[in-house]
Amino acid sequence: MDKEQFKEVYRHSLAHIMAKAVIEIFGKENVQLAIGPQIADGCYYDFLLPRAVTADDYKTIENRMREIIRRREDWTCSELTRTEALELFKDQKYKVELIEDLPEDEKITVYRTGDDFVDLCRGPHVSNSQELMSVAYQVRSASSAYWRGDEKRDMLQRIYLYAFETKDELKAHIAWVKEALERDHKKIGAALDLFTFQDTAPGMAYWLPRGWIMYRELMKFVRELQDEYGYTEISAPLINNKRLWIVSGHWAHYVNNMFLIPGITEGVEPETEIKEASAPCSCYSIEAEDTMAAKPMNCPNAMMTYKRRSHSYKELPIRYSEMDVLHRKEKSGQLNGLFRVQEFRQDDDHTFVTEDMIRDEIMRIIELADREYKTFGITYRAEFSTRPDDYMGDIEVWNKAEASLKQILDEKYGEGNYEINEGDGAFYGPKIDLQIKDALGREWQCGTVQLDFQLPHNFGLTYQDQDGTLKMPIVIHRALLGSFERFTGIITEHFKGAFPFWLCPYQVALVPIRTSHNEYAEKVEKALTAAGVRVEADYTDTHMNNKIKKFRGYKDPYILVLGDKEAETDTLSVSMRGSSNQIHDVPLDKFVEMCRKLNAERTLELVNPAE
Amino acid sequence: MDKEQFKEVYRHSLAHIMAKAVIEIFGKENVQLAIGPQIADGCYYDFLLPRAVTADDYKTIENRMREIIRRREDWTCSELTRTEALELFKDQKYKVELIEDLPEDEKITVYRTGDDFVDLCRGPHVSNSQELMSVAYQVRSASSAYWRGDEKRDMLQRIYLYAFETKDELKAHIAWVKEALERDHKKIGAALDLFTFQDTAPGMAYWLPRGWIMYRELMKFVRELQDEYGYTEISAPLINNKRLWIVSGHWAHYVNNMFLIPGITEGVEPETEIKEASAPCSCYSIEAEDTMAAKPMNCPNAMMTYKRRSHSYKELPIRYSEMDVLHRKEKSGQLNGLFRVQEFRQDDDHTFVTEDMIRDEIMRIIELADREYKTFGITYRAEFSTRPDDYMGDIEVWNKAEASLKQILDEKYGEGNYEINEGDGAFYGPKIDLQIKDALGREWQCGTVQLDFQLPHNFGLTYQDQDGTLKMPIVIHRALLGSFERFTGIITEHFKGAFPFWLCPYQVALVPIRTSHNEYAEKVEKALTAAGVRVEADYTDTHMNNKIKKFRGYKDPYILVLGDKEAETDTLSVSMRGSSNQIHDVPLDKFVEMCRKLNAERTLELVNPAE
Repeated sequence: MDKEQFKEVYRHSLAHIMAKAVIEIFGKENVQLAIGPQIADGCYYDFLLPRAVTADDYKTIENRMREIIRRREDWTCSELTRTEALELFKDQKYKVELIEDLPEDEKITVYRTGDDFVDLCRGPHVSNSQELMSVAYQVRSASSAYWRGDEKRDMLQRIYLYAFETKDELKAHIAWVKEALERDHKKIGAALDLFTFQDTAPGMAYWLPRGWIMYRELMKFVRELQDEYGYTEISAPLINNKRLWIVSGHWAHYVNNMFLIPGITEGVEPETEIKEASAPCSCYSIEAEDTMAAKPMNCPNAMMTYKRRSHSYKELPIRYSEMDVLHRKEKSGQLNGLFRVQEFRQDDDHTFVTEDMIRDEIMRIIELADREYKTFGITYRAEFSTRPDDYMGDIEVWNKAEASLKQILDEKYGEGNYEINEGDGAFYGPKIDLQIKDALGREWQCGTVQLDFQLPHNFGLTYQDQDGTLKMPIVIHRALLGSFERFTGIITEHFKGAFPFWLCPYQVALVPIRTSHNEYAEKVEKALTAAGVRVEADYTDTHMNNKIKKFRGYKDPYILVLGDKEAETDTLSVSMRGSSNQIHDVPLDKFVEMCRKLNAERTLELVNPAE
Repeated sequence: MDKEQFKEVYRHSLAHIMAKAVIEIFGKENVQLAIGPQIADGCYYDFLLPRAVTADDYKTIENRMREIIRRREDWTCSELTRTEALELFKDQKYKVELIEDLPEDEKITVYRTGDDFVDLCRGPHVSNSQELMSVAYQVRSASSAYWRGDEKRDMLQRIYLYAFETKDELKAHIAWVKEALERDHKKIGAALDLFTFQDTAPGMAYWLPRGWIMYRELMKFVRELQDEYGYTEISAPLINNKRLWIVSGHWAHYVNNMFLIPGITEGVEPETEIKEASAPCSCYSIEAEDTMAAKPMNCPNAMMTYKRRSHSYKELPIRYSEMDVLHRKEKSGQLNGLFRVQEFRQDDDHTFVTEDMIRDEIMRIIELADREYKTFGITYRAEFSTRPDDYMGDIEVWNKAEASLKQILDEKYGEGNYEINEGDGAFYGPKIDLQIKDALGREWQCGTVQLDFQLPHNFGLTYQDQDGTLKMPIVIHRALLGSFERFTGIITEHFKGAFPFWLCPYQVALVPIRTSHNEYAEKVEKALTAAGVRVEADYTDTHMNNKIKKFRGYKDPYILVLGDKEAETDTLSVSMRGSSNQIHDVPLDKFVEMCRKLNAERTLELVNPAE
């Protein structure tokens, strides 16, 4: 059994051991067993219990598990008929339900651990509990969960278990989790006053002054690079009549994720209805012709922008980048800080090309992606998804396009150094996804490059080719950072709030020791501001230690304490984030030049100003 | 009779003359007279006619009017009883309706022109047609209009007449109208490829690459100045739950202008309803708790942003500027290019101040307004609106605030050099409006500075004062350009599309004579781009005259034709917008420096590069 197979076995078996322990602790008659699957860092089991499980129970459960394992009981597997299984589990209602839901021809197996515990299970498991003696586990948490995730069914107690092969692995994982918690962007976002959420707009961020500076710097960064690569930015209506969504296909396939603005049904006087707000109004209907919806993506408007006039082959490729605000409805339970929102902007683009241009264009996009990710010190890997069975369009075009993409990927990353998902492309075209890896080793799909043979068809797009005939362009959809919201969340955790200089809301903080030093501080502020450096200063009559504490809390890269000495010599006392106990004496002009350079080069790491 | 009084008389009388002419042309039995008021540049008259009036009729009408005037007929006024009037106009159904709608005690007068024409009218009029011999008039246009503006009533023919005291005035006005038409921002917007509208998003602009550059330059300009004045920008959700609008008061007073996203009524399965789209769905209701709406203004979210944490008096003034996208519903007939839209951004701000800060803060705002308008070479005048009868808040605060505002206005513009609208302020606070004047002499209210004692109250905003007590801040709402959309429309007409250098989508256009000159053109492009100049180049194998024509059509400030001579000497051949027949030889580095300076200083007029 290799390491991966053993992991599946011990995690799965530990779930049974935990179930057995819970039964022994709460009493068999008080426990209904639901299911106990393995997960990324262990397993969990769902129980119906007479009371909620609290942190006080964790040790008891762990100790009882240890005791059960030490019993060195044998595990036996038996195959039962449906009738036998239903009889065996007649007191376990969820098991009965699970058995009844099994397909007719499904083999039913149960695993018995010692004499007194049996569970419906496909296995595999250990053959004796002693195989679990060396594995390391710990109750992670308990929470409530609905049976089958349905809020109308029973509320169960879900007990999570961390489970690893060795104590060291468990310890490392717990440290990782602690680190991840400390990096939580929601926590850092609040501490750094970057963004906030209010319950009148779930999943839609309020960008506070500091966070909005960062957000705009991100957009500026992307725009500068996109300018360099020949992109031209457009902006289109955020709200569109359903006629647009019908053409694009969103009305048929995406309407449940859209914020709908139903029209007013014919014959009802809307103003009267709205004003008499005591009785429910039934005048809104998405059947009404003037029904609109907030856009969930930029594509349809980009097609309309292209379509506004005729185009010659000489104009292609046309690259319409867009950063408009998008809205997508999510279930409230799935909202998660900036990671899952209902309102966001993408670094989006739609490029209109001829078949022959695909290769070069994709190459440029990959190059751009390289430069963007590199600026954040982030590595990534590519995944290539090819033609599915239900593809649309000309197979010749597909073949040529896929060959181009493959060639680029081979050239760029080397054969075998990217994943191929055969048949996993969208029906409208093949795609390349870029998965970035953050400081915690987590992967995030941020970049995507998709060919589209469908939308240009739906919108009837054309260009006049060299021979005078009208042809259909191919559209390349691409986003590299993905949504600015999500990317901000990712890099907040990646950098733990200590952002690169160019991205920090304020880059230099000024602490005049007394108000008599404000004058010199203003001089310093002016010099830095003139060089395009973002400065915040506290000119109030507050103790310098409090000022310093505040700016450290914001993780400002450099804090300057300014007093008599500094003013007299025009030399700054600089403390740098990450080594703030060390004070560097730096002439003002040298410091200004250093900051200017950090901005111009978008340097990843801070520079010691004394060097 | 002074000039103004005479204007009213002759315009009004000309409407009668036109009616008399139309009757004589079409035959009494074929004409039903509606109404004939005077308007800003003449008058019009609405008729029910057997056919539409076309341009071919204009001369006939004008000639007949001239002939009628030459008859030198007397005009007589008589007062009638309601019965007499109804009898007199029994064949004129609209007149009958008008008479019947008159209040009981209203005096009914009719004016008789010669023996055969009589009209219901309050007057005054000329006493003899010969008084009209010297006035100048001309049929402007004819169009259809519904009786009483009601699309369910008769469709009438409205004939417009320009009417002025002298031929010169008429001529000047017609020239002005021609100029205004040439400056029409919708026409220029299309010619310069700045923006477009599609009928799937009425009143919401598509910003095309060229226009979007301008739009962003405008935002950048405003942001730079606002940074200098201590503003901090925020961005908040575009869609908010109705609970927010209920607190702000928009739900009670503004709901009919908002794009509503009604919630789903309890108990209805939305997905089923939406998917079975054949029958009208009645599950949407603004009574549902999750009803949301697109924000029509930034204020409520700014209040929520302030409210997210406690504030000390030391932090004030807090200036939250915002450029979020806003949506307001307009009647489709009122939409007008960028002048009246349903989607727009404002250069908005909400500043939170103590009572004592009002004066200084307003002074700074006026100073900022001066600088902004001056950059466009636009003059303005101020209007001051004071406490209305239904004011809210403390009269002491009102008095103090109004005195501050008055003092500022006196100081800034001089007493009497601004308009005072007594009692015309909003119920929540006094305000100053700034009316700018464009190149055609038209006024546009762009800037507004409003004190608000109400919203901080509704949202329960506080700050901790020096003495430790919680006090309510006052909010200053202000926008200076107003909406970026409308302002873009205004300046497009003001500059006739020939924008100042810094605002032009592309500032320099490159025309390599042959593709062999592309290399040098690329060098020039690189040098200019590195200096922050926006360059467009046509590297295709197209005749240079066509390239030049295209760039002239875009009104690019400078066009460089690049051939052997230029490449050899590194000296550009520059033609400047407005004097494009003149070619200036300018060394590359000198030209780059000139462009850099035009951008840095946001110079209003182009500079002759040879100077």
